[in-house]
Amino acid sequence: MTDNNNTSKRPLILVSNDDGITAPGIGFLVQVMKEIGDVIVVAPDSPQSGMGHAITVGNSLRLDKVNIFEGVEAYECSGTPADCIKLAKHYVLKELTPDLVVSGINHGANTSVSVLYSGTMSAAIEAAIEGLPAIGFSLCDYRQDADFSHVLPYVKKIAEEALNSGVPQGVALNVNFPINSNTPIKGVKVCRQANAHWQENFDQRMDPHGRKYFWLVGDFVNKDKGEDTDEWALSQNYASIVPCEFDLTAHHVLSKLNNWNLD
Amino acid sequence: MTDNNNTSKRPLILVSNDDGITAPGIGFLVQVMKEIGDVIVVAPDSPQSGMGHAITVGNSLRLDKVNIFEGVEAYECSGTPADCIKLAKHYVLKELTPDLVVSGINHGANTSVSVLYSGTMSAAIEAAIEGLPAIGFSLCDYRQDADFSHVLPYVKKIAEEALNSGVPQGVALNVNFPINSNTPIKGVKVCRQANAHWQENFDQRMDPHGRKYFWLVGDFVNKDKGEDTDEWALSQNYASIVPCEFDLTAHHVLSKLNNWNLD
Repeated sequence: MTDNNNTSKRPLILVSNDDGITAPGIGFLVQVMKEIGDVIVVAPDSPQSGMGHAITVGNSLRLDKVNIFEGVEAYECSGTPADCIKLAKHYVLKELTPDLVVSGINHGANTSVSVLYSGTMSAAIEAAIEGLPAIGFSLCDYRQDADFSHVLPYVKKIAEEALNSGVPQGVALNVNFPINSNTPIKGVKVCRQANAHWQENFDQRMDPHGRKYFWLVGDFVNKDKGEDTDEWALSQNYASIVPCEFDLTAHHVLSKLNNWNLD
Repeated sequence: MTDNNNTSKRPLILVSNDDGITAPGIGFLVQVMKEIGDVIVVAPDSPQSGMGHAITVGNSLRLDKVNIFEGVEAYECSGTPADCIKLAKHYVLKELTPDLVVSGINHGANTSVSVLYSGTMSAAIEAAIEGLPAIGFSLCDYRQDADFSHVLPYVKKIAEEALNSGVPQGVALNVNFPINSNTPIKGVKVCRQANAHWQENFDQRMDPHGRKYFWLVGDFVNKDKGEDTDEWALSQNYASIVPCEFDLTAHHVLSKLNNWNLD
């Protein structure tokens, strides 16, 4: 990165996503972040939805400077969202430390268990692993031409509050917004991840050469009736914030496993 | 799956991995599982290391029956480890429910934060999301010709105990074994995930056409001095078992975030 930002008093904000650097959602996110800080973008050169926390270890990576956001230094990377954060921190930014890392705005929800499959959140979680304050933003609207206008004030408010109050160490925030509708967003709820899952199936097809192939299809099923979940908040037209940690240890079962006979 | 297993009294064991169906590690795992149950394999057709919890949503999937494990029904899949578990459950096994899902044996450690990047563990965690008892096995030896002989009795013992005692719901077990050395494995320790991370860097190279490319390189750094971690157990020549959950909610920071000013 050029060092003109180095002396700036404005916060330095790193932006990434998983829909790819040309997706409208990241354009909106850059636009909002420019209002509150100096922005640098490192994002995938192609869609990476569903990449989870994948990193590129068996192949090399490309990183190219692009000029697609006015007045913003931006790079496209051939790798995953997690790769983008690693390249941003260790190659692009070098000794500069971003004050905030934001990812998104994803075209589509990343609620409940979907956080594990989400490239948007893997960028934010990778940043948290690197000790950086991070937020992933998603809109519950998969369409390429999704309307983001109603969420922009909330994105700004949440990012500013993260800069002012600090995101707790070891945590990345998973923010989801309801689709634009006649009902305005009621506010923001801090939530836990709903205990929901995808009820999956495979659509079997035959290729022109007579060989079978499969498409993953599925319905999201939420049996969690709690009114403290991200799914509940969104169903009531609130934005949801779930703090996510990357230590997966299920502490509550350690004592049970210690009773196993393994000698 | 053919229904000859359907009437069997032996446990039905689904095997997958992330190094690909031809990796020696899965061969050893199949060999051990055959001693305790009826085995079916659905594994990637190529190495998927570092794929994390990626799923294939932007492309279709292939699934082909292969005959590489004697007396075992086996399929190779063009997708990720998580895809393999989904295809196994919803297409190959259909109404059959495996009594245990095992993944590995991975060539290389999957300790601490590496669990997030691990395809081996993503297969196990995907199974846990599906409500199935699951274990990921990894050996702290990256080599293709790694020696697995010293861990096979432990793999059997842990799988049998999981079948007998049941893996707690919502949890997948992450088992790591020390490399084969002159010191025998001392036993098995139930652990938490060490708070360690990868200190990363990028090896920059120039391709024959004069264009830059990057290889991710890094060192694993463990500053966690706790004697209850997976890293500690392995350093003392114990096998480690960490129960992993897929609800990432950082419950301990919910109240702090509720103090944020977001109105």
